[in-house]
Amino acid sequence: MTYHLHYWPTIQGRGEFVRLALEAAGAPYVDVARQPKDQGGGEANLVKFMSEAPAPHPSFAPPFLVDGDLTIGQTANILLYLGARHGLAPADEAGRLWVNQLQLTITDLVAETHDTHHPIDSGQYYEDQKPEAVRKALSFREHRIPKYLGWFERALVRTSAGGKAWLTGGDVTYADLSLFQVVEGLRYAFPFAMKRLEPDIPRVVALRDQVAALPRIFAYLASPRRIPFNQMGIFRQYPELDAR
Amino acid sequence: MTYHLHYWPTIQGRGEFVRLALEAAGAPYVDVARQPKDQGGGEANLVKFMSEAPAPHPSFAPPFLVDGDLTIGQTANILLYLGARHGLAPADEAGRLWVNQLQLTITDLVAETHDTHHPIDSGQYYEDQKPEAVRKALSFREHRIPKYLGWFERALVRTSAGGKAWLTGGDVTYADLSLFQVVEGLRYAFPFAMKRLEPDIPRVVALRDQVAALPRIFAYLASPRRIPFNQMGIFRQYPELDAR
Repeated sequence: MTYHLHYWPTIQGRGEFVRLALEAAGAPYVDVARQPKDQGGGEANLVKFMSEAPAPHPSFAPPFLVDGDLTIGQTANILLYLGARHGLAPADEAGRLWVNQLQLTITDLVAETHDTHHPIDSGQYYEDQKPEAVRKALSFREHRIPKYLGWFERALVRTSAGGKAWLTGGDVTYADLSLFQVVEGLRYAFPFAMKRLEPDIPRVVALRDQVAALPRIFAYLASPRRIPFNQMGIFRQYPELDAR
Repeated sequence: MTYHLHYWPTIQGRGEFVRLALEAAGAPYVDVARQPKDQGGGEANLVKFMSEAPAPHPSFAPPFLVDGDLTIGQTANILLYLGARHGLAPADEAGRLWVNQLQLTITDLVAETHDTHHPIDSGQYYEDQKPEAVRKALSFREHRIPKYLGWFERALVRTSAGGKAWLTGGDVTYADLSLFQVVEGLRYAFPFAMKRLEPDIPRVVALRDQVAALPRIFAYLASPRRIPFNQMGIFRQYPELDAR
């Protein structure tokens, strides 16, 4: 069965958390909006599919994943589904709930990251809310990034008795893949802030390296399937939002 | 087994979504921080418990639920757990995923609601970000509330062949309870905006009434266990953020 992932075709965005899980699982998938237009690709088809599809469970926004008769929206919900199917989450209930909790905390961080460049109105241009963005980004750099990544660092302290550790203390899960993506994104968007913070979060940085070295992820990151970071995604590099 | 809910004792906030599920289920629970201090109540004990507890799965923020050995954080994750245990979610996987998706969409709306009064910095006072809040609330009222509640209205169009309908088309779920709470909160915070919008979302309004009439919810809302809305929660009534 081939999964069909529907997401904006030119950005990593929230879809990237799903792409990383599909790639790590070696699962066959079509990144639908990145196909040629006559094969259903492109943004117009994505919007059309989202609003007109007879699916009983439409999404408020991309990404959504189609698996046969099932259409699943919300990033963390898609990962909950894929995690159980592809060994990217523990089999026991407590473990699954914990990984979902980790992912939902990443969801919160990602939403706050988006709001650093769109603090007032997600439907207006960055340039129309730049003074507010500068002020929001300051608080985000100084308080929120350290609070979130410090929390993940402490989670890793508890699971790493020494040496390589994943967030659950067991095998790699989709939450590990997502934490990798967050570190990559924050390094892109806030290079100076991250350079200052990283000595305080060595386990988070080590986990990022472990994910990057997973053979399937390593191959994915080097492939054209990995869209480079850019100024349209969640993680954007506006120098005025970072500080040396 | 009595659940222990840990949440800020003086507000509805995100904890209210959990309280509503526990109340609808008739599940025994202790709202820990609302107990006397010598029984573990109060904010100081809440913060202490969150940071010092030996629980293997600490939360980034309240609410969290303790059930025996299990500590579960993130509102939608707690509801996923309770829903499965108390018949507040469908038994089949597709249904459970859909209810989780609905809840995560509510989570997004709740986060945006919070940001209308704290668009810049959640750690600073409202008064220190008031001009930005006024601008954000305008966009929230005009674009975001109609977009979100319109999406839920269309979900209900699909499930209501006529007459009473819940979001899944089956029995009441925790997503219905949460949508009730969102309507109540938005009516409190944005009374004029909601008065204008409600004629366009009759099914959402009818669902709100159905939830309010559930015997256990009816009793809960009339009890002292229901904390009134106030200016410290997520839904706040600042006249300058609404418009006649």
